[in-house]
Amino acid sequence: MLELYHHGSSVCAAKVRLALFEKEIEWTSRYVDILAGEQFDPAYLKINPRAAVPAIRHDGAVLTESTVICEYLDDAFAGRRLKPCAPLSQAQMRIWTKLVDEEIHPATRPLTYVVTHRHAILARGEPAVEDHIASDPDPAWRERKRRWIRDGFDAPDVALALRTFVRLLERMDCALEGSEWLVGDGYTLADGALTPYANRLEMLGLSELWQDRPNFDRWFAAVKERPSFAPALFDYLPGELRARMLADGQAALPQVRQALLGL
Amino acid sequence: MLELYHHGSSVCAAKVRLALFEKEIEWTSRYVDILAGEQFDPAYLKINPRAAVPAIRHDGAVLTESTVICEYLDDAFAGRRLKPCAPLSQAQMRIWTKLVDEEIHPATRPLTYVVTHRHAILARGEPAVEDHIASDPDPAWRERKRRWIRDGFDAPDVALALRTFVRLLERMDCALEGSEWLVGDGYTLADGALTPYANRLEMLGLSELWQDRPNFDRWFAAVKERPSFAPALFDYLPGELRARMLADGQAALPQVRQALLGL
Repeated sequence: MLELYHHGSSVCAAKVRLALFEKEIEWTSRYVDILAGEQFDPAYLKINPRAAVPAIRHDGAVLTESTVICEYLDDAFAGRRLKPCAPLSQAQMRIWTKLVDEEIHPATRPLTYVVTHRHAILARGEPAVEDHIASDPDPAWRERKRRWIRDGFDAPDVALALRTFVRLLERMDCALEGSEWLVGDGYTLADGALTPYANRLEMLGLSELWQDRPNFDRWFAAVKERPSFAPALFDYLPGELRARMLADGQAALPQVRQALLGL
Repeated sequence: MLELYHHGSSVCAAKVRLALFEKEIEWTSRYVDILAGEQFDPAYLKINPRAAVPAIRHDGAVLTESTVICEYLDDAFAGRRLKPCAPLSQAQMRIWTKLVDEEIHPATRPLTYVVTHRHAILARGEPAVEDHIASDPDPAWRERKRRWIRDGFDAPDVALALRTFVRLLERMDCALEGSEWLVGDGYTLADGALTPYANRLEMLGLSELWQDRPNFDRWFAAVKERPSFAPALFDYLPGELRARMLADGQAALPQVRQALLGL
């Protein structure tokens, strides 16, 4: 049996669900409500001491780290192959999945905070806002979070995060020139790894980032048409959270445009 | 033909050389003197726009990122297999190589700076010190570098880096309990990925970190006895640099001990 510990708002969990649906693997949902802090439950900390989703349990073995999990699912299960066969293509696929882990994922948090999370947090009023900031155990994260909440788009790392995405879209648009998918001839884990981030950008009202990126635009349309997209991205996302993210994204449009002009 | 663009002081380049020697792959050395800034030469920037070593060129294709290169070498070449066969073991190997990329490598720079690099930089006198700091294009890195050079062990991220290594050694010591190598029964890319960092710690005078870690100690002794170790780690390291690192490491011992007490 394959169990997935996950949540609807986690981009990394969505990446694993995409692989599960692409390969048509049967799985059992173990929902960890990270908005209610369930990732800190002692029982879950035994599964992932880093208090993060996703994690899987398969035949008794626990595995964390979404990128490692996706390769594992492709190696351990039958179904559509999500890794290209040629060693060089596999390496090119890993260049993309590594970029997601090391640059794209870290740039997602500041943007999500300033566009949407900060409003929900500020709405709680003082001293709940300071309590929220103080609850982060890492002093460096606390400081960044404080700036996101207090300063919004003026926080110092927001422009850097936006620039990371502008460069990503440029790079993807080039890679997709004359090619349907990111690596080789078929859909791979590279496409799956980028999908939840493209979707997050769109939900945050940032789709103007690719108004002059026709190859990216075509790729994203093709990704959305796959049967894996809707169930992986939306079936586990609380409706209220999705509605709030979309509304906050619309409301942030003027600030997004302003920030993009300043890059 | 396989060409390796590399330098003797880069831990990531050493990791790739280890894989090359383990698999007994023939390769041609393309030495990029990163201490003289050759990684910024326009010709090299075409190979790696990020101005970093290592990179390989194999049958005309260029590949960067040491962890991706190591998997590629194992996939594309005959010789001793450096990846375990079972999917779960492969995943466990990738958990280690990912940890190296995302936590261990970033923690290596502050330690190397405060133990050794800062002395060479400070010896140049003003205004060369400020010029060195100003030459980094990233404002966040400039600020960190300034603190490493000006404040040494008192720089705010040094204790954090030391703690990262203390935890790494604890984790490795546990994984090596009753096991000769990090994953499964044989030497894998996980062992190779950790080797240059263990060696760096030792050169920086930090081997007291594993005085109570007998499994790690045994593992490191076994790693050193492999025919790959000496050529991969030392054949391309300028002798003067090696001697300076060792001497600075010895001189830093009292500060290291003090810092460890404060953790």
